[in-house]
Amino acid sequence: MSHQAMNGFGGKVLTLENMNPNVRKVEYAVRGAIVQRAEQIEKELKEGVKKPFTEVIKANIGDAHAMGQKPITFFRQVLALCAYPDLLDDNKFPEDAKQRARRILGACGGHSIGAYSASQGIECIRQDVSRYIEKRDGGIPSNPDNIYLSTGASDAIVTMLKLLVCGEGPDRTGVMISIPQYPLYSAALADLAAVQISYYLDEDRCWGLDVAELKRALSAARTHCNPRVICIINPGNPTGQVQSRKCIEDVIRFAKEEHLFLMADEVYQDNVYAEGCKFHSFKKVLFEMGPEFSSTVEMASFHSTSKCYMGECGFRGGYMEVINMDPEVKAQLTKLVSVRLCPPVTGQALLELVVNPPQPDEPSYSTFMKERTEVLAALAEKAGLTEKTFNTVPGIICNPVQGAMYTFPRITLPQRAIDTAKEEGLAPDMLYCMRLLEEEGICLVPGSGFGQREGTYHFRMTILPPTEKLKVVLQKIRDFHVRFTKQFS
Amino acid sequence: MSHQAMNGFGGKVLTLENMNPNVRKVEYAVRGAIVQRAEQIEKELKEGVKKPFTEVIKANIGDAHAMGQKPITFFRQVLALCAYPDLLDDNKFPEDAKQRARRILGACGGHSIGAYSASQGIECIRQDVSRYIEKRDGGIPSNPDNIYLSTGASDAIVTMLKLLVCGEGPDRTGVMISIPQYPLYSAALADLAAVQISYYLDEDRCWGLDVAELKRALSAARTHCNPRVICIINPGNPTGQVQSRKCIEDVIRFAKEEHLFLMADEVYQDNVYAEGCKFHSFKKVLFEMGPEFSSTVEMASFHSTSKCYMGECGFRGGYMEVINMDPEVKAQLTKLVSVRLCPPVTGQALLELVVNPPQPDEPSYSTFMKERTEVLAALAEKAGLTEKTFNTVPGIICNPVQGAMYTFPRITLPQRAIDTAKEEGLAPDMLYCMRLLEEEGICLVPGSGFGQREGTYHFRMTILPPTEKLKVVLQKIRDFHVRFTKQFS
Repeated sequence: MSHQAMNGFGGKVLTLENMNPNVRKVEYAVRGAIVQRAEQIEKELKEGVKKPFTEVIKANIGDAHAMGQKPITFFRQVLALCAYPDLLDDNKFPEDAKQRARRILGACGGHSIGAYSASQGIECIRQDVSRYIEKRDGGIPSNPDNIYLSTGASDAIVTMLKLLVCGEGPDRTGVMISIPQYPLYSAALADLAAVQISYYLDEDRCWGLDVAELKRALSAARTHCNPRVICIINPGNPTGQVQSRKCIEDVIRFAKEEHLFLMADEVYQDNVYAEGCKFHSFKKVLFEMGPEFSSTVEMASFHSTSKCYMGECGFRGGYMEVINMDPEVKAQLTKLVSVRLCPPVTGQALLELVVNPPQPDEPSYSTFMKERTEVLAALAEKAGLTEKTFNTVPGIICNPVQGAMYTFPRITLPQRAIDTAKEEGLAPDMLYCMRLLEEEGICLVPGSGFGQREGTYHFRMTILPPTEKLKVVLQKIRDFHVRFTKQFS
Repeated sequence: MSHQAMNGFGGKVLTLENMNPNVRKVEYAVRGAIVQRAEQIEKELKEGVKKPFTEVIKANIGDAHAMGQKPITFFRQVLALCAYPDLLDDNKFPEDAKQRARRILGACGGHSIGAYSASQGIECIRQDVSRYIEKRDGGIPSNPDNIYLSTGASDAIVTMLKLLVCGEGPDRTGVMISIPQYPLYSAALADLAAVQISYYLDEDRCWGLDVAELKRALSAARTHCNPRVICIINPGNPTGQVQSRKCIEDVIRFAKEEHLFLMADEVYQDNVYAEGCKFHSFKKVLFEMGPEFSSTVEMASFHSTSKCYMGECGFRGGYMEVINMDPEVKAQLTKLVSVRLCPPVTGQALLELVVNPPQPDEPSYSTFMKERTEVLAALAEKAGLTEKTFNTVPGIICNPVQGAMYTFPRITLPQRAIDTAKEEGLAPDMLYCMRLLEEEGICLVPGSGFGQREGTYHFRMTILPPTEKLKVVLQKIRDFHVRFTKQFS
């Protein structure tokens, strides 16, 4: 390119060279190169190209409905009533669904879900979110003023990180995230030019979190940034662990001692399967630790309509609760979210139903409970099946899927595969996943997209496919793994 | 605060002093202090506090349904069918609505709007958007690969600006925006720490845009930043002008000569009322100017489901079309939007209906056309009424509302009012609007929230209230203005 072109005149105004360099650094493996290739293959299949398989199974993303999970009837009835209120006269809809729809519409401008809501979210929904949290946490109070509805949890997480980032050079804000992590975090940090501080989960102890490791990571980071935030995902994504109460206490104590803002990503709070495991909210533990903690530790907790038993990803609903946030900062947060006007009102409506589901004395209760229980029971079964099957394959080691929707097994790769990947400019587990996609039509995400200890290799797979299909998937991965290992040995 | 507290230990982790300084600089007047006060007054009214009025009329924001505008029946029927597909068996719904719902559901993962879509948006909807643009622009081709669905237009505008910002100090990206402007732009630029380059619209020529003024602003800016972008809002917000074809050509020529990326905010493209005015899309004009322009000028155009005749703000639907964008940059854009997974699928579904409405041979056509025509005719009537009424008030001068949904009249304020405002630390037009709110219950946005020439004062009011209510609003503002002027003279 000529000098003149480099300066812009003559060439494009906007090029890879002169675009926002932070955006260039953003990576998001869950929808990265492998998914693009998967979509290409789907097109090729449609066009009649012959492949060793007839469909691509996208186990790369926690997208329940795409995997055949049915929506909760009650939720969709209310949403249809909200969209087209003429149906409120239709006696096919149960009374409790109509009552919820009327409540939601009554809180909308002009009684329409087509009106903007308050930027923080519809007030009566924020009240119901607070009541839901109080019930979940055994009565610990929640203030609707501290609830911000959001466009999925991602939106709230990015907004919260944005508030927290400041400083230049060695004063730049550092943010502690687990490795492996959900790549929204690393992507947001790259975008904000914040410093990522990686702390490693302990694979040998079921992806446990150890405070000594937090201390190591923090003290290493203090030399080049200003650590201000710790992010925790519980239940874990991609690693599926469920944190013990003790561990949560340790993290809270660490956050207080080290003066860190605590971000608790709790979007999988209903997805706990393993015996002896239980979801403990960070907020509940914080308050049970006494006023020394509950009145000082600054925290935000995130939830979403996309996961749990409902899996309504497309609606982009979610909320965050902020605790002990400086009122002046809260005013800034409210201002910041107002620039985007409001979260999607249909997502807010759905969230209202999640936090205010049918009650035992209401007509939709039994169907709702049946549907909810079936989804969670199936997930629990699939969590067990996945762990058991993978652990029968030589060269695959799989921790229990205690919660969430993913397994993150460790795979042993032959040295020749690692060398081949290097030659092709790929991460070794990317080579593995690409081959799996081409040969079996199964789309996974390589562990390198989430981070992993140097020299170890993994992939993330959702456990969402229906049981019979999941069995096929597991069998295919098993066969592939044996074949791949043989091929490169 | 002690030194120790200043350093964080002892005080809050996150304070006004140590939060992201860019976020602090963000301002968004459309939902600023005056709206917060309006909401407080609404609460007071509910609690029985006596006021000189019985309701607050929020004319601060273009929120059609909140002002009583009814949704388009066909759109809501299809959305209800998508939300609750059991209704597809219901013979109360017309066949064309069912056919659209089936098409949308067929394009969703697992046939559910609860699945994530592709990050760029559902493919068949992007195809329909392209066909819609082609039809609008008399056959000029549109490529679905260049269409990105978004969470309202705001989302796409911010994303596009984010791609474009780079450099430090005098190399920092400068972005030209009109004054008055829609404050999403200034807010996004503050957030991105980009340099705002203000060019003034000519109030005396019906808020016209003059290339000499663009040149003045650009050359003044080159001393302290790197101007790379020009943003145009047409039809104008808050100023309601509709640009002539000639003016659009001038802007395109200017963008090419000065090597600027062109961002065309065309969300009010169906909202044109004044005789002799017509909406010309930037893309159409660009292509009609010949290959010298159509193959070089980089551009993005934005549209939304929130405005026009549908006014479905709550669904957060929208799209952008990018033209002549470097393919490597486009790949970066696709990557960037993937981090947020996807725009709300209900908003995408609504957009599908906007770009693919009932056709003459379909059962819903006549109702659809009737509803659409009624909304646009009422808006045209209210645009005329507003201009006429304001221009009868001494001290208010009002340009014709040629398009969009707002009037931005100039108000003459007595010197004593200006002095009083200064004493109270308020912008003079904020004082005016606050008094109007307290005395008459009408919520407007002061001109200072949009920018205006030094020493001039304005407010923005939407023309959306129903005609009879709008008449009352105009009368109340008239009375207030006379009273305010007398009081401060």
